[in-house]
Amino acid sequence: MKQRALSSADRLTGHFRNTAYVINESRPYFDAAHAVGLMAVQGRSTTGRTFVLGTGPLDSRPQVIDFVRCSYLGLDNHPVIVAGAIEAIEAHRSLHWSCARTRLNFDLLAQLEATLSEIFCARVIAFSSVMLANLGAMPLLASGQLTGGRKPIVVFDRTAHISLAYHKPVVADETRVETIAHNDIDALERLCRDNPVVAYVCDGVYSMGGNSPIKELRQLQERYGLFLYIDDAHGISLFGPQGQGFARSQFPQVLGDRTIIAASLAKGFGASGGMLMLGTADQEALFRRYSIPHAFSAAANLASVGAALGSCNIHRSAELGQRQRRLAQRIDLFDRRVTTAEQGNSLPIRMIAIGPEAKAIAIARELLDAGFYTSVTFFPTVGQGKAGIRVCITADHGISEIEQLCDCILKT
Amino acid sequence: MKQRALSSADRLTGHFRNTAYVINESRPYFDAAHAVGLMAVQGRSTTGRTFVLGTGPLDSRPQVIDFVRCSYLGLDNHPVIVAGAIEAIEAHRSLHWSCARTRLNFDLLAQLEATLSEIFCARVIAFSSVMLANLGAMPLLASGQLTGGRKPIVVFDRTAHISLAYHKPVVADETRVETIAHNDIDALERLCRDNPVVAYVCDGVYSMGGNSPIKELRQLQERYGLFLYIDDAHGISLFGPQGQGFARSQFPQVLGDRTIIAASLAKGFGASGGMLMLGTADQEALFRRYSIPHAFSAAANLASVGAALGSCNIHRSAELGQRQRRLAQRIDLFDRRVTTAEQGNSLPIRMIAIGPEAKAIAIARELLDAGFYTSVTFFPTVGQGKAGIRVCITADHGISEIEQLCDCILKT
Repeated sequence: MKQRALSSADRLTGHFRNTAYVINESRPYFDAAHAVGLMAVQGRSTTGRTFVLGTGPLDSRPQVIDFVRCSYLGLDNHPVIVAGAIEAIEAHRSLHWSCARTRLNFDLLAQLEATLSEIFCARVIAFSSVMLANLGAMPLLASGQLTGGRKPIVVFDRTAHISLAYHKPVVADETRVETIAHNDIDALERLCRDNPVVAYVCDGVYSMGGNSPIKELRQLQERYGLFLYIDDAHGISLFGPQGQGFARSQFPQVLGDRTIIAASLAKGFGASGGMLMLGTADQEALFRRYSIPHAFSAAANLASVGAALGSCNIHRSAELGQRQRRLAQRIDLFDRRVTTAEQGNSLPIRMIAIGPEAKAIAIARELLDAGFYTSVTFFPTVGQGKAGIRVCITADHGISEIEQLCDCILKT
Repeated sequence: MKQRALSSADRLTGHFRNTAYVINESRPYFDAAHAVGLMAVQGRSTTGRTFVLGTGPLDSRPQVIDFVRCSYLGLDNHPVIVAGAIEAIEAHRSLHWSCARTRLNFDLLAQLEATLSEIFCARVIAFSSVMLANLGAMPLLASGQLTGGRKPIVVFDRTAHISLAYHKPVVADETRVETIAHNDIDALERLCRDNPVVAYVCDGVYSMGGNSPIKELRQLQERYGLFLYIDDAHGISLFGPQGQGFARSQFPQVLGDRTIIAASLAKGFGASGGMLMLGTADQEALFRRYSIPHAFSAAANLASVGAALGSCNIHRSAELGQRQRRLAQRIDLFDRRVTTAEQGNSLPIRMIAIGPEAKAIAIARELLDAGFYTSVTFFPTVGQGKAGIRVCITADHGISEIEQLCDCILKT
């Protein structure tokens, strides 16, 4: 988010956030997008990526093909996952126990964490969302408890997801915070050279397109002991024989004591909730005692747990690879028709750059009229005057659905 | 949390948090409580408040009566709520759509929010947890957008829940933050007199016992225009003919533009997730555009939504009042046997004050051996040397279960 100039009257404020500025600048775009029916849309799923738009009797509502949801492998309505959710609730005759995870836990949740730990070859802790997984991790990172008792300077990629960037003032209350340009490996190396302990916070796959250079980050880790905290919410399940994901699949079998990967149990994974992949028993003990949502909020509910166990079965079957290949074919098909900055990167997020916010909103509305729901994106998610349309490609889209969307995009 | 003295070398850090200090001071207590099997306990529910402890074959595991869970009305295994969760998943053949609420929403979620808005006579927005509902609200409060465009000084009760207190550095990055002693109405009034715009952040019912003086807070609101943000997670459903809760039931029918109440959809309510009760259409539009979890995290999943709809039906039936009365009888029974600081306050949380951490851990273990699972509480949840045992009384506890627990407490 843009930072304002600081006056002497408020020198203690405005280092990281200026919520009023963001609201005042972006409110007209939000209101316009709501007014034409592009935001806060309601629906009910049918088959594949189609949903019935709006409310009221189902047969009176139009059908729309969805390119908004991040269910990249098309798992979010998979019968095994849906059945897993229902079976877990039926077996326990409860959906949710209202207490901290430091107290009482459904035994099924321990089973899920053990299974996830096998799949991702890490010590996995589940959370009710990635946003809370990150909230729990940031103060522990700042405290130095993850870096041998020495506080690191914590370096954020400028475009790191808000679920990470939100915590900058909290981290800065305990240690030094730096923000560097997107994927600026040179700047990061300079910081590594000049400081004894450095931690880097970034996304694996960025929600607005692109990815972190994991290979280069690993080189800095080997050279300088850099600690890496990577939110791979959008990369999970898409790569690796068991869906280890974009980030985890580029690290060795043993994760080690200098890397934590956050990921979603929704999105590519197809269930609901979030998780952290930790490398050591000490880290696990630390998080199970001091991660704030672990100690003071609730676990993922049993439906999430059961759904995730269903998805684990899919991740260990041949179906996962089939879905990964179907997704790759569809990304390739899109790339052969429509040029974007992301062309050829093998990730499922494509940004159609447009520029003026009003124009992006108008084009997204035209696409919806043609039967395609996409995400119009504007400030503060992207820079001002850099509005665009985000398309999430999934393994569940029909070839002809991708082709028709591409035709529509090229026409508008 | 305790604040350390600031040295000149770190004058920009340590204003609000000192995570390393908290960990170093409390780690022995956590390790001891884990070592004797009081923390991270696993189980499976049976009937009432009994659960089967541990893992492995069900018939080889001991049965324990639970006083840890905050399901104060005993709703968390109510068949109507469990059935609601399953029906919602079956109707939509999905558990969860992975996208922001500013994009695509299950139509059933809109139905839930409309029903909750009727019950609580407010504009209700649902969240996946109270912790995230609070995260979304704090920057909006700091921005001044809830107080006519003028930034308030934001005053926290010293014992406000960590899901509120966590955000102090974020709020302080945008406006002035003050922390006052617990329920210090005089200090709050002085701040109201000396500052044009003041917001107060507190719990309705405190998780470690006691409550906010809502009547006195309303008087300050009438006199000075004080903005109130009250987290009533532990008070929801327990009072009021439709379970409006501890805080909401003490405000007029029209909530107005100076009060926001956060509450749980779990705990007393019996489902899973959180919610905000807002007073005006402007506030609702603001939160639906700019609340960070609303725009950048996921909705409560469909099982939560279906369970909450089931609970709404219970809230609108005679059963709610019956359960409220059953709870009141059980609290009264406990109070006639065991003396606590909370005696007679009509709330379901009772703290057995013990003092030394090791002693509290030993007593909680004795209670577990006798078949009662309670929450041993110590620093940082309460002050150092002020450890104790928390007992959560519910409408679902048998009279004899309460009596036996009291006997055991008096014996130890």
